[in-house]
Amino acid sequence: MADTFRVTFVDPENDGTERHTNVEDGKTLLDAAHAAGIAMEATCGARGRCRSCRVKVVSGEVPPPTIQDTVQLGHDEVRENFRLACQTKVIEDCVAMALPPRSESGHQILASDVSAADAHGFVIHSGVEKHLLNAKAPVSEHNQTADWEEVLASLPTTVDRQITLDVMRKIPSALRDKGGVITATTFNNRVIDLEAGDSTEHLYGMAFDIGTTSIVGSLIDLTSGECLANVGGVNPQAVYGGDLMSRIAYAQFDEKKLATLRARALNAINDFVKEACTEAGVLPNHVYKMVVVGNTCMHHVLLGIDVSYVGLAPYAPTVNEAIVVSAGELPLKAAPNAQVCLLPIVAGFVGADTMACVLATRIYESEEIRALVDIGTNGEVIMGRRGRLMACSAPAGPALEGAQVRHGMRGAMGAIEKVEIGDDVCCAVIGDAPAIGICGSGLIDACAKLVESGIMETSGRFLRKGRENLPQALQDRFLDVSGGIEFALVDKDKSGKDEAITVTQSDIRQIQLAKSAIFSGIAMLQKVMEVSDDDLHELLMCGGFGNYINVESAVKIRLVPNLPVEKITYAGNAALMGAQIALLSEDERNRASELARTIEHVGLATHPDFQDIFVDAMSFLGNGEAAETSAAPKRRRAGGRRAAAGGD
Amino acid sequence: MADTFRVTFVDPENDGTERHTNVEDGKTLLDAAHAAGIAMEATCGARGRCRSCRVKVVSGEVPPPTIQDTVQLGHDEVRENFRLACQTKVIEDCVAMALPPRSESGHQILASDVSAADAHGFVIHSGVEKHLLNAKAPVSEHNQTADWEEVLASLPTTVDRQITLDVMRKIPSALRDKGGVITATTFNNRVIDLEAGDSTEHLYGMAFDIGTTSIVGSLIDLTSGECLANVGGVNPQAVYGGDLMSRIAYAQFDEKKLATLRARALNAINDFVKEACTEAGVLPNHVYKMVVVGNTCMHHVLLGIDVSYVGLAPYAPTVNEAIVVSAGELPLKAAPNAQVCLLPIVAGFVGADTMACVLATRIYESEEIRALVDIGTNGEVIMGRRGRLMACSAPAGPALEGAQVRHGMRGAMGAIEKVEIGDDVCCAVIGDAPAIGICGSGLIDACAKLVESGIMETSGRFLRKGRENLPQALQDRFLDVSGGIEFALVDKDKSGKDEAITVTQSDIRQIQLAKSAIFSGIAMLQKVMEVSDDDLHELLMCGGFGNYINVESAVKIRLVPNLPVEKITYAGNAALMGAQIALLSEDERNRASELARTIEHVGLATHPDFQDIFVDAMSFLGNGEAAETSAAPKRRRAGGRRAAAGGD
Repeated sequence: MADTFRVTFVDPENDGTERHTNVEDGKTLLDAAHAAGIAMEATCGARGRCRSCRVKVVSGEVPPPTIQDTVQLGHDEVRENFRLACQTKVIEDCVAMALPPRSESGHQILASDVSAADAHGFVIHSGVEKHLLNAKAPVSEHNQTADWEEVLASLPTTVDRQITLDVMRKIPSALRDKGGVITATTFNNRVIDLEAGDSTEHLYGMAFDIGTTSIVGSLIDLTSGECLANVGGVNPQAVYGGDLMSRIAYAQFDEKKLATLRARALNAINDFVKEACTEAGVLPNHVYKMVVVGNTCMHHVLLGIDVSYVGLAPYAPTVNEAIVVSAGELPLKAAPNAQVCLLPIVAGFVGADTMACVLATRIYESEEIRALVDIGTNGEVIMGRRGRLMACSAPAGPALEGAQVRHGMRGAMGAIEKVEIGDDVCCAVIGDAPAIGICGSGLIDACAKLVESGIMETSGRFLRKGRENLPQALQDRFLDVSGGIEFALVDKDKSGKDEAITVTQSDIRQIQLAKSAIFSGIAMLQKVMEVSDDDLHELLMCGGFGNYINVESAVKIRLVPNLPVEKITYAGNAALMGAQIALLSEDERNRASELARTIEHVGLATHPDFQDIFVDAMSFLGNGEAAETSAAPKRRRAGGRRAAAGGD
Repeated sequence: MADTFRVTFVDPENDGTERHTNVEDGKTLLDAAHAAGIAMEATCGARGRCRSCRVKVVSGEVPPPTIQDTVQLGHDEVRENFRLACQTKVIEDCVAMALPPRSESGHQILASDVSAADAHGFVIHSGVEKHLLNAKAPVSEHNQTADWEEVLASLPTTVDRQITLDVMRKIPSALRDKGGVITATTFNNRVIDLEAGDSTEHLYGMAFDIGTTSIVGSLIDLTSGECLANVGGVNPQAVYGGDLMSRIAYAQFDEKKLATLRARALNAINDFVKEACTEAGVLPNHVYKMVVVGNTCMHHVLLGIDVSYVGLAPYAPTVNEAIVVSAGELPLKAAPNAQVCLLPIVAGFVGADTMACVLATRIYESEEIRALVDIGTNGEVIMGRRGRLMACSAPAGPALEGAQVRHGMRGAMGAIEKVEIGDDVCCAVIGDAPAIGICGSGLIDACAKLVESGIMETSGRFLRKGRENLPQALQDRFLDVSGGIEFALVDKDKSGKDEAITVTQSDIRQIQLAKSAIFSGIAMLQKVMEVSDDDLHELLMCGGFGNYINVESAVKIRLVPNLPVEKITYAGNAALMGAQIALLSEDERNRASELARTIEHVGLATHPDFQDIFVDAMSFLGNGEAAETSAAPKRRRAGGRRAAAGGD
């Protein structure tokens, strides 16, 4: 039997009257409201297409916001725990405030009178349109028309006459198979598909973040903005080099090896497209637009562009502007009608994935100085505010994504995602399954707690002397094996594998190198821009840790500067979110191109101060060293369940 | 030892003083002039790029004009037997007038101050340009530029930033392999190729006429207009149906068979590209533009467009506008950098090949009413004058191209091209080789001479009674075999095969059906446009007969109306010529698009009068029935040798 949770609704219009109900796991807040007898409207039919069921979650955890939440409510409201009740599943006991619909009650954001400039959201305008036509095949032998002329005559005059061979080949049957009823699909006024019959209901797109370590994607309804499926997995190129430089080195000056890497990425994306479409019950030929983000190496490899020079100073990309290619040109066989859009690149190591993070976090319109850190195999940092943004990239390596760590894994069922250490170690495991490994957020948490509990020194060395002062249970977890010291987080008999889940001294060193690189990147931009910790209004962390990370732990291990925790936000996989935003909005996709040209790039490797900062950043914070929190710790967003995870 | 011919030069500026010289077969008139001590200039180095060696041929035959003759001198001068001495080979004794260079002495037509509107020629402007660049790879890590930005910075600002993946992939090595020296090739301001080093000397294109029966092509220097190689052969699709309707029927509603036809055409073109480039010593990746013409079926099949409906009333094409596709999209592997341009289509059976003929003959600017007949497997007729042109298409079948005729062959070594009948039969054979067959022009000549000499009745029946009145040698040529009557043109012992070269009664019937279709098409347009034979100022015949046909014979067999022979011109393979013109001039290619939309199409099959006209047109003219020639027979152009032949 499914779990049951208690949901409480507070009515702010009625002196805070409360209504209670119990709902099963998996039900939405909208279901709960109805069960509690609240006449909550769902004008769009609970499809996330309007704001009529807007609520504010007051206490208890709910899943991360969906793309519809963000589209309808905007980033700011979502951060303040506003949600669409229809999109929000109940995952534990919670309290929500039922709100009257905003002034545009029942207003559908699809209507074009909502300005894209509205800071609270954006208008869905993917650039893809479907036109239902009623055309007739040519009838006269004298002064004959051509099939295409007949089709064109029933299309808006703004549509380009020029078509590709692929589309030409579809004309004869599209025109005749359903008595002249045709669905013509255009992307930015160019016809990209013709189909006999009415398929106007089916308009989909996919967003992909191709990370060095993992690839994640979402299938999205381009009309409603609804996310229909999330897919993801390890980047199959990883066998040819875990970090970016070794990946580049593999393919450097070797066309065949470049082709090998490329084929692996293309095959993976093809498979993910098929998987997502199967899961959502969508035909892959109804996927018309794809937005792909990734670092410069992933971007170039996917396009088949030589990455030799991306790996040599000054690490310049071959192309940095936004690119649109047809699926056929790429080639991407699984979604034959798709236009594949790649976001622009800032520099060789500040790629299209970073641009997507910039879009998703809207750092470009901030009045205060903010920093954005996209933590992956490379850690890109963007710092600044409206009018001036600077960027750098720190070579972190894949440890924070769980790679090159003994028991590291990506954030999937069985991964340790949280660690608590008191008299003994207590781990939270994704899916409440027996632990089989540890993901990035778990590693960060583990390091912080190991230092906090005195098991590890701030230098990163496991305690050698004085272990007898630790509780016995913790003492027993030290394993002094031939390869060095290990510390067992989960014992062999409780693990899902045939061995204990441990962190090794070597794992700690990998994590230190990774977190020091990120920390140094942030410090370097602070130095160049003359921004003190106090000047920094917010630090947004994003990246594919497998799960939402513990911000205190990130501060403790000096992954990020020693800021009060309320200044630090974890924004999830912002690269994928940015790709989704560019998928749903051509305005936002165009914005990326404008922004990319204005962001100033700072090369870390050639900067004289970098080595000093890096070495200094290797250690962890000692107990009591963390900045004092100016107020009660900010309620962090969305814990338990995973949304689309992964990617760097 | 080679033949020697006597060449006489007349000096019009010096009271007609004559100078004589003897030159070997194969030498040019320029060689002859120099041998005769005339200081004839060849400013461009005898490459056909200027007009300094302009002559007028006064008597004696010379080969058909080359494309350079037409480009430099214009159609009108060429018709009046003006030639470039450097381009004109001496093939028999002749007399030429050495002319002072026209006012623009030494002027190269490449200069853009020659107006394209000049009715005497056109400016070479293929749309393909080479830009020699000196670019530097990015050097700074801070505020990095991309390779492509560096290349773009040294290109004219008119060049489009957008490039294809193919071009992107060439950037890294093009920028670095020769120290930044790059040749960028653009087509209509879009970059289509990048190459390290200076390749600006190499700029080539190919023109192709894909006929139902044969394919012919020319490799042309896009800077000089010089034709570097001619290639051609049987259309390898022919095994799947000799005429257009059977070719369509083969692929109708069967994607695989369509793909088979397509592959055959693509393979043939790939092979021809390689053959032409090898012959001319040109790299195929320096072929940047191709203009392909062909009837609608060939056009659609090449593009992979279903031809099912081209074969069903009202026989409408799927697309009729001009198309440009990249070699990669087609795909055409042999010339990977080429932009393939297809001329527009007028109607299902008045295709891009006809548009090419319209371009080549300039019928669109005629003050008087002219008719243009492109004789191939389908015979397209265009009639009219400036401001109004009408078109129709007559299903002739392949007999006039030498197909479906017992000893028929295309115009190649060993083909009978001329027939004379006096006391016996005398045949002229291409290459002066033993006859192995008979080409289209030979068949037309044979039919005319067979009627003239009484061997055949005007109904097309071989003489059965009264053969004894014929000379004995002719009587002996009748072979009454089991399958019907045959007439031997070349005896077994003189033929290049192990049998006599004959024409059969069935061959004659095939030719009658073919020529009657053509004749009826012309007659139908005359009827619709109310144009009498007298109103018709000129009839231009073109098509791939293998060789220039005898105009009297064409009248005699009623292939064309009974006009005085001076009103009839044979224009050679005008479709290929038109393709060459569109290859060398974007203005002309654009002109084709404008014209295609204004030509009125008359469907023959649905016209109530067509059957009557057709039956009436089956017979041949009796002796003495030909229209009286109003003056001495007009000197016909170009007899003996073959230029680029074939195609329909």
